Amino acid sequence: MSQPVVGIIMGSQSDLRVMREAALVLEELGVEFELTIVSAHRTPDRMFDYAKGAKAKGLKAIIAGAGGAAHLPGMVASLTTLPVIGVPVKSSNSIDGWDSVLSILQMPGGVPVATVALDGAKNAGILAAQIVGTSDDSVAHHLQEYKTSLKDKVELSIDEVAQKGWKA
Amino acid sequence: MSQPVVGIIMGSQSDLRVMREAALVLEELGVEFELTIVSAHRTPDRMFDYAKGAKAKGLKAIIAGAGGAAHLPGMVASLTTLPVIGVPVKSSNSIDGWDSVLSILQMPGGVPVATVALDGAKNAGILAAQIVGTSDDSVAHHLQEYKTSLKDKVELSIDEVAQKGWKA
Amino acid sequence: MSQPVVGIIMGSQSDLRVMREAALVLEELGVEFELTIVSAHRTPDRMFDYAKGAKAKGLKAIIAGAGGAAHLPGMVASLTTLPVIGVPVKSSNSIDGWDSVLSILQMPGGVPVATVALDGAKNAGILAAQIVGTSDDSVAHHLQEYKTSLKDKVELSIDEVAQKGWKA
Amino acid sequence: MSQPVVGIIMGSQSDLRVMREAALVLEELGVEFELTIVSAHRTPDRMFDYAKGAKAKGLKAIIAGAGGAAHLPGMVASLTTLPVIGVPVKSSNSIDGWDSVLSILQMPGGVPVATVALDGAKNAGILAAQIVGTSDDSVAHHLQEYKTSLKDKVELSIDEVAQKGWKA
Amino acid sequence: MSQPVVGIIMGSQSDLRVMREAALVLEELGVEFELTIVSAHRTPDRMFDYAKGAKAKGLKAIIAGAGGAAHLPGMVASLTTLPVIGVPVKSSNSIDGWDSVLSILQMPGGVPVATVALDGAKNAGILAAQIVGTSDDSVAHHLQEYKTSLKDKVELSIDEVAQKGWKA
Amino acid sequence: MSQPVVGIIMGSQSDLRVMREAALVLEELGVEFELTIVSAHRTPDRMFDYAKGAKAKGLKAIIAGAGGAAHLPGMVASLTTLPVIGVPVKSSNSIDGWDSVLSILQMPGGVPVATVALDGAKNAGILAAQIVGTSDDSVAHHLQEYKTSLKDKVELSIDEVAQKGWKA
Amino acid sequence: MSQPVVGIIMGSQSDLRVMREAALVLEELGVEFELTIVSAHRTPDRMFDYAKGAKAKGLKAIIAGAGGAAHLPGMVASLTTLPVIGVPVKSSNSIDGWDSVLSILQMPGGVPVATVALDGAKNAGILAAQIVGTSDDSVAHHLQEYKTSLKDKVELSIDEVAQKGWKA
Amino acid sequence: MSQPVVGIIMGSQSDLRVMREAALVLEELGVEFELTIVSAHRTPDRMFDYAKGAKAKGLKAIIAGAGGAAHLPGMVASLTTLPVIGVPVKSSNSIDGWDSVLSILQMPGGVPVATVALDGAKNAGILAAQIVGTSDDSVAHHLQEYKTSLKDKVELSIDEVAQKGWKA
Repeated sequence: MSQPVVGIIMGSQSDLRVMREAALVLEELGVEFELTIVSAHRTPDRMFDYAKGAKAKGLKAIIAGAGGAAHLPGMVASLTTLPVIGVPVKSSNSIDGWDSVLSILQMPGGVPVATVALDGAKNAGILAAQIVGTSDDSVAHHLQEYKTSLKDKVELSIDEVAQKGWKA
Repeated sequence: MSQPVVGIIMGSQSDLRVMREAALVLEELGVEFELTIVSAHRTPDRMFDYAKGAKAKGLKAIIAGAGGAAHLPGMVASLTTLPVIGVPVKSSNSIDGWDSVLSILQMPGGVPVATVALDGAKNAGILAAQIVGTSDDSVAHHLQEYKTSLKDKVELSIDEVAQKGWKA
Repeated sequence: MSQPVVGIIMGSQSDLRVMREAALVLEELGVEFELTIVSAHRTPDRMFDYAKGAKAKGLKAIIAGAGGAAHLPGMVASLTTLPVIGVPVKSSNSIDGWDSVLSILQMPGGVPVATVALDGAKNAGILAAQIVGTSDDSVAHHLQEYKTSLKDKVELSIDEVAQKGWKA
Repeated sequence: MSQPVVGIIMGSQSDLRVMREAALVLEELGVEFELTIVSAHRTPDRMFDYAKGAKAKGLKAIIAGAGGAAHLPGMVASLTTLPVIGVPVKSSNSIDGWDSVLSILQMPGGVPVATVALDGAKNAGILAAQIVGTSDDSVAHHLQEYKTSLKDKVELSIDEVAQKGWKA
Repeated sequence: MSQPVVGIIMGSQSDLRVMREAALVLEELGVEFELTIVSAHRTPDRMFDYAKGAKAKGLKAIIAGAGGAAHLPGMVASLTTLPVIGVPVKSSNSIDGWDSVLSILQMPGGVPVATVALDGAKNAGILAAQIVGTSDDSVAHHLQEYKTSLKDKVELSIDEVAQKGWKA
Repeated sequence: MSQPVVGIIMGSQSDLRVMREAALVLEELGVEFELTIVSAHRTPDRMFDYAKGAKAKGLKAIIAGAGGAAHLPGMVASLTTLPVIGVPVKSSNSIDGWDSVLSILQMPGGVPVATVALDGAKNAGILAAQIVGTSDDSVAHHLQEYKTSLKDKVELSIDEVAQKGWKA
Repeated sequence: MSQPVVGIIMGSQSDLRVMREAALVLEELGVEFELTIVSAHRTPDRMFDYAKGAKAKGLKAIIAGAGGAAHLPGMVASLTTLPVIGVPVKSSNSIDGWDSVLSILQMPGGVPVATVALDGAKNAGILAAQIVGTSDDSVAHHLQEYKTSLKDKVELSIDEVAQKGWKA
Repeated sequence: MSQPVVGIIMGSQSDLRVMREAALVLEELGVEFELTIVSAHRTPDRMFDYAKGAKAKGLKAIIAGAGGAAHLPGMVASLTTLPVIGVPVKSSNSIDGWDSVLSILQMPGGVPVATVALDGAKNAGILAAQIVGTSDDSVAHHLQEYKTSLKDKVELSIDEVAQKGWKA
């Protein structure tokens, strides 16, 4: 296995249910990644070390998922110059996801987090691949194929509706 | 001046407009405090040092104010066992204050932040004094007087309305 | 059993499902507490008596939980100079918890309530312990151990993910 | 002047700007009323006395206005069997009025507050008159005339638009 | 059976699940009522007739429940001078109840609707009884007893928690 | 002037500030219309007559604008089989427009209102013209020209930015 | 089968569960329609072709349903001068439907989408029939019958409640 | 001037007020960019051409800003495999920015948009530079300097508060 270029981290093991979608799509797109747990509130020192060391060990992007008052993506972004992708997770103690979304999205000027949809870990994986793909033609090629596959799946459902009829 | 027992920090100098209310009421209640700027996203190392050193230098409570995706109160709470009071600030880039409120209030289990109302810095100061007052009879006495003064001011306005009439 | 220093009250017996988390964590942290039901709307006289007598009987903090138009925490805060911690409960008749949160959080200047997350009774307990711990070294020590235990649990889950792999 | 049958109370003198609309319309509808300041959080004892004594002194309805975490209408309702009309006031420290609305509207089963629109003090006055009018034919008659006057004003504006044209 | 003094109407038979609470409490409080279905959007003529005839047939208050874009309470209020109590129903096609609440609560100046909590039909019934009770001593007496019974039930639960302990 | 085919109505003269945009664009698109004031809550009988008579007098669509608890569009839709276009108006007593939007949009099954954006009266006019244009080639032709003009205006601004540069 | 005059499209096969209500009611009202899948984000070229060709093939209205960041209705509206009816679908990845509603409703001036309630596909179908009915007397007649049937169903439920009583 | 690697587009010239912040920061970070107007709803063909041609002409990222029902970022993302950064603009016709945020953020699985805060164009510029910096050491170096400058500015304000005191 070659060197990971994307790091996937999340605040709690319970977020893995959502965040594994990022891993699955990176695997499908041929992007090497690593995945672990880093809690902003329970392991702040580990978060500092992870974020500060990310660039030196060859990562090109970090995907960070968290729920509720989600501070992991923004704090990691404050500690690295790598692009950080934030995934708001609709955790059990969230107010319908609004807290997760707003505490990741609304970063102050100077420290961006690339936020995706609530529970949108798959899109976080694709976005990381798009970033890697800006300088890796193989990944860029996989992304083009992936986009075609999205279209193909819709066309299959078009045919299915046409054949079975809308009432079925 | 004796040793400060309350620390007031905020993410940006522009928050001082709101946060000074905490300082003013602590002054009124006879509680020693210190006030400075600590940005979670722009000076993360300073935030770590401040939070980790707070207890040792004699603080009994920390008031932290921030706006937008407000991570300062929660991150400080993750780094100290002191009670941390969070003030959601309605900053210029906030979505009507909802982001500030939710990213401070909705902390995960294990790491509380005592959240007050949007722009509620005065109440943060009183709450800090109440905490100090649990073991400082002088402050407790000031708080009792303060509560009486609230009632006195209402009674003045009752008289004013009674005398001038509601149409005035 | 020694004298309780924290009072846990709630508006209805149905809130006990949420509020018992405060009791459990206070027990774990070695803080003596009492727990009972006090309804702002159905037993207003009892609420007055409880709040006005709390300081004299040795309490250092009051945890009050309520749902919907939750008036218990704020009214208790109006009747005592002790720190009052409010727990918004997502009761069955609540609009997704927003009513509970806002009617506890948005107290007027002069009368603070230290608000925690929706259904965040565990954090209310920890916060009460932090307040007690400002003048009780034993409790402060328990809090430090508790913080370490949070980290330890994350590290266990880090190991588990590392060993089993993220796909498991 | 005869005995007041409606009491208008509000949490702060600054609410008078909004609440005077209730007084003005009661005056127009020929309903005797009294108006004063009663703060749930700053004068809780006064609130208790006012609410408990309201029925005995001849009031038939109480209009209570408050902003932010607005506890006055609900607490008064807990202390009397008179109908209580709540006016959510959009005070300066309110989150767009949502806190005022929800902390008045979402009362638990058993203790109703008749809530009107945000800053809807005029409607609170009319509603109080409607309650009085259920047993006072003179007030009922005034209400019928008032309804006719609403229609007459619309008809004037219909004519104005018809004559001047919509472009003017 | 004597003449009904309260009318309970609702937009759809499916609202009966919620609205029957109003009927049950009126029965308990000894207030005569009638109950039927009146749809603003599907039987507008019936709504007009019902609202315009309500006062003449002896009603003293109308309780109207509806969900989604709930126009029934407000339209009835536009057609009568009786007090109209609106119950926002969280129907299946509602956006978490916000539409029901806002389309009943936010009536324009001149045409009040006394709004109760989402699905708060029981409180609508009590409020109607309070209105009737302003001129009917028997109902006023029942309301006083009802308030006492609320307190009694809380006291039972206080005893239960005291005896069984909070862990049970 | 030929027979109007679109009726523009609004709840209050103050809505004309917003609703005149509908009139202006209908004029531009060559669609005959009439405009007047019809208040659901203050002139309910007039609303009934207007809605019930609209089809017979040759209207093909009705544009209805209202704010707050906005019942005009939905009630008109309940009284006619013509397409009704609702314009939520952000009136002075609205809660940021949410009440206007939800009380027009969330109509129950069976009685649609074609809702446009908050204060979107211009789009209501265009939509009415599109409805008329389904059977009137001249209007359809105007709409095609209008669409081209939208594009032309963007192209002018593209040129302006290209020439002046983005810093200007 | 004659030429379709209404096109029903949706972003994904999973939307068919909601959107089939539009087809069912159009069938009931005697309006010819076609139904297929067109994804704005996965088949953008197909969307362009569909929208640009819709008028030429005889369609008089397009019903477009989509969830989350729902771009299909608005983009189709940008590409045709036909009236476009948007159905916000509460899909699994939606934030309580708010994203679907706002991304369809809040179109900029110049490009209207006639938005119906969340999951309101039935009303979209009726609205399309109303548009067709402005120039097709047979459809207009069906709509009148449909409106009568709505009333008839309410009257049946009125009778049922009257006979069985509200307690049943 | 060398070849642009970032494209900045926006739906309307009025968005330039917000979007110029992206250009300013890219200039500061030494990243070549182009800027123009592309309207999803008024120039859909131009949007198609721009998005489809972006990769071939050497762009590595696209920044797209839009307000209200903001479809530009998502539609561009559907037409390219480049990373697309979305800037929700709080335009005049927006509902407090919620529509802009949700219609950009909540993209379906397969088509990500990297969303930044409301009006967060500066952060969009920095994020684009971070993407470019994953394969351009000069830009990566500029980003490191930029992060240091953020810290330096905070330290200046710390000193200013320390010297002038918090009351000034």
